[in-house]
Amino acid sequence: MPADSDVLLIAASETDSNLYYATRFPAPDSFIFLRVKGEKILVMSDLEVDRARATATVDTVLSYTEYEARFKRREAAHPTAVDVVDLVLKERGVTHLVVPENFGFEHARRLQAKGYELSTKREPFFEERAIKTGAEVAAIEAAQRAVESAVRRVLDLLGAASVRDGLIVHEGEPVTSERIKQLINVSLMEQDCISQHTIIAGGLQACDPHNEGSGPLKAGELIVMDIFPRNATTRYFADMSRTVLKGKASPEKKRLYDTVLAAQEEAIGSVRDGADGQKIHARVLERFEQAGYKTGLIDGRMQGFFHGTGHGVGIDIHEAPRIGKTGSPLAAGHVVTVEPGLYYPGIGGVRIEDMVLVESGGCRNLTRFPKVLEID
Amino acid sequence: MPADSDVLLIAASETDSNLYYATRFPAPDSFIFLRVKGEKILVMSDLEVDRARATATVDTVLSYTEYEARFKRREAAHPTAVDVVDLVLKERGVTHLVVPENFGFEHARRLQAKGYELSTKREPFFEERAIKTGAEVAAIEAAQRAVESAVRRVLDLLGAASVRDGLIVHEGEPVTSERIKQLINVSLMEQDCISQHTIIAGGLQACDPHNEGSGPLKAGELIVMDIFPRNATTRYFADMSRTVLKGKASPEKKRLYDTVLAAQEEAIGSVRDGADGQKIHARVLERFEQAGYKTGLIDGRMQGFFHGTGHGVGIDIHEAPRIGKTGSPLAAGHVVTVEPGLYYPGIGGVRIEDMVLVESGGCRNLTRFPKVLEID
Repeated sequence: MPADSDVLLIAASETDSNLYYATRFPAPDSFIFLRVKGEKILVMSDLEVDRARATATVDTVLSYTEYEARFKRREAAHPTAVDVVDLVLKERGVTHLVVPENFGFEHARRLQAKGYELSTKREPFFEERAIKTGAEVAAIEAAQRAVESAVRRVLDLLGAASVRDGLIVHEGEPVTSERIKQLINVSLMEQDCISQHTIIAGGLQACDPHNEGSGPLKAGELIVMDIFPRNATTRYFADMSRTVLKGKASPEKKRLYDTVLAAQEEAIGSVRDGADGQKIHARVLERFEQAGYKTGLIDGRMQGFFHGTGHGVGIDIHEAPRIGKTGSPLAAGHVVTVEPGLYYPGIGGVRIEDMVLVESGGCRNLTRFPKVLEID
Repeated sequence: MPADSDVLLIAASETDSNLYYATRFPAPDSFIFLRVKGEKILVMSDLEVDRARATATVDTVLSYTEYEARFKRREAAHPTAVDVVDLVLKERGVTHLVVPENFGFEHARRLQAKGYELSTKREPFFEERAIKTGAEVAAIEAAQRAVESAVRRVLDLLGAASVRDGLIVHEGEPVTSERIKQLINVSLMEQDCISQHTIIAGGLQACDPHNEGSGPLKAGELIVMDIFPRNATTRYFADMSRTVLKGKASPEKKRLYDTVLAAQEEAIGSVRDGADGQKIHARVLERFEQAGYKTGLIDGRMQGFFHGTGHGVGIDIHEAPRIGKTGSPLAAGHVVTVEPGLYYPGIGGVRIEDMVLVESGGCRNLTRFPKVLEID
């Protein structure tokens, strides 16, 4: 959208990252943001108005209560958020607004009924959000350091563990997905990072890339670890996956791992300003096919490589751009994951994921953690 | 809405609690849910289709890819989510849908362009969501137990701490809001609960009820603690606030505390099936006024009691019903907070919050933690 478009968001910035991006004001309940003739305006409830004036990155913070009172003096009815927006816009002579595609339908309908013309803008709503500033890259890197220190603890535990009846055992207890997830999540919380849906999935479980994993982990089995916390203060995410195996890998598992690793390294090597995300993804698929790893519905379930190669990371864990079937051009300043994977119920799952910063001639890997399959 | 209305949601269940409620399927990316002629249907991407078939509480899981392919055979274009919804609905002869007020405007516009008639339904979209089942109450209570054990650790720390130059000091270091928040958040994470925006605010900071607090905590100063984590497995929240003070409270602070406590106890005593949330809130305000505690804009900032008395708790931290200016009738099975507060920059802030289950003749307090102002 043109930089001078007049924009309206009505949402809770806790869940709407565009609103958080525009205001840097975290709030759990819905509030009104306008960008009108270049002026960034918030209309806030009494509960939030002082905090918003002190911290939000906007030009003007108006009191919702004052506009509500003004409305009530004219009309006998209780105003809706749209009635308040209408008063603010009338003062400023605005009749056309750009809203996000996910703008609330009821708000939109009421605005249209008052004569406003609404256009929607596809994600990314704020194009500039995909291009990270130095401070944003630093926030993402700091979160990745926290991930790495948590995963280091896991590898230390797996290294110290022994094998009994095929199960991984540590301090007398079987090592379960739940125990590893708790170790990671608590370690991350100690570093002010909130980790949800951490994946520690072994064997067949890992063949469903969104299965978070449960129960005892077995030696000799591929274990996919995917960790993507948000720093509670900066609100930026990081994202890393590693695949490990306690003991010696079978040749079949080792070949699966090596194939994914080689494809990941090639993909990272092709990330640069101007590169085409769709092509990078297609090349990973092609490489897998050439190595004999087919993708598709096999025996009634998806097997092979059936997720994207990467996605942008920022205030959302999945944001623009994409490296996948519907990939987009990469640009300097994008932070993206590169995470090919292969999943076959007969063998197991492998996913290896780094997070990189797109630069003019290539990319800088923001991930420092080693890639090691076998843990003695 | 009538129980037989045909319903459409397109959202990510990680952020849209109605969708999670309807499907019990947590997913970070947007998916399609329909309830058509009583049949609950999901349309899922390849990545989620197996997990959805195994775990979602719906009747039918359709493959998005299959409908996409069907569309592409007919039209040369790449289908949108709405094109897929259209194919599913045409098979079932549906032309009118009820959607939530926050349904995405762009999806709505495309459905209307295809001839669908859309009605919106205000929150609560699923009325029955406010009435908790036994399992839901148990999940909320379990999260509250976790909160209590975390706050117990804080009181133990404050009890063991000493006072030096007016600051609270423990193990040689000043006790800060940040340190207490970390203690709470890590303790909760150890119990599989994710706590965000924990408030530990002392003195003037606590007079802004959403200020999360920062820096050293002082002896003799009112400290508001508000903790509202979500259990990562059940996805249910709990919510509790306590106000404490290290040392002896001044008569002015003690009177403020006692006034809030008495109002809170009276409010809890009036919670029952059929009670009017608006009246309960008005009575708290009235009691505060009678005690000489005025509410309003004083010296340019809101002072007194300027937030709601309570809110429903469940899959969202704030959900129906409300006990406040725009309160609603309470019904057996509601889980609500009761959390009056008073905030005066000259004295400090007090908020005391329990979570209760509404029953026919009264309510059951789901909170067991004591209410003690002074910590020696």
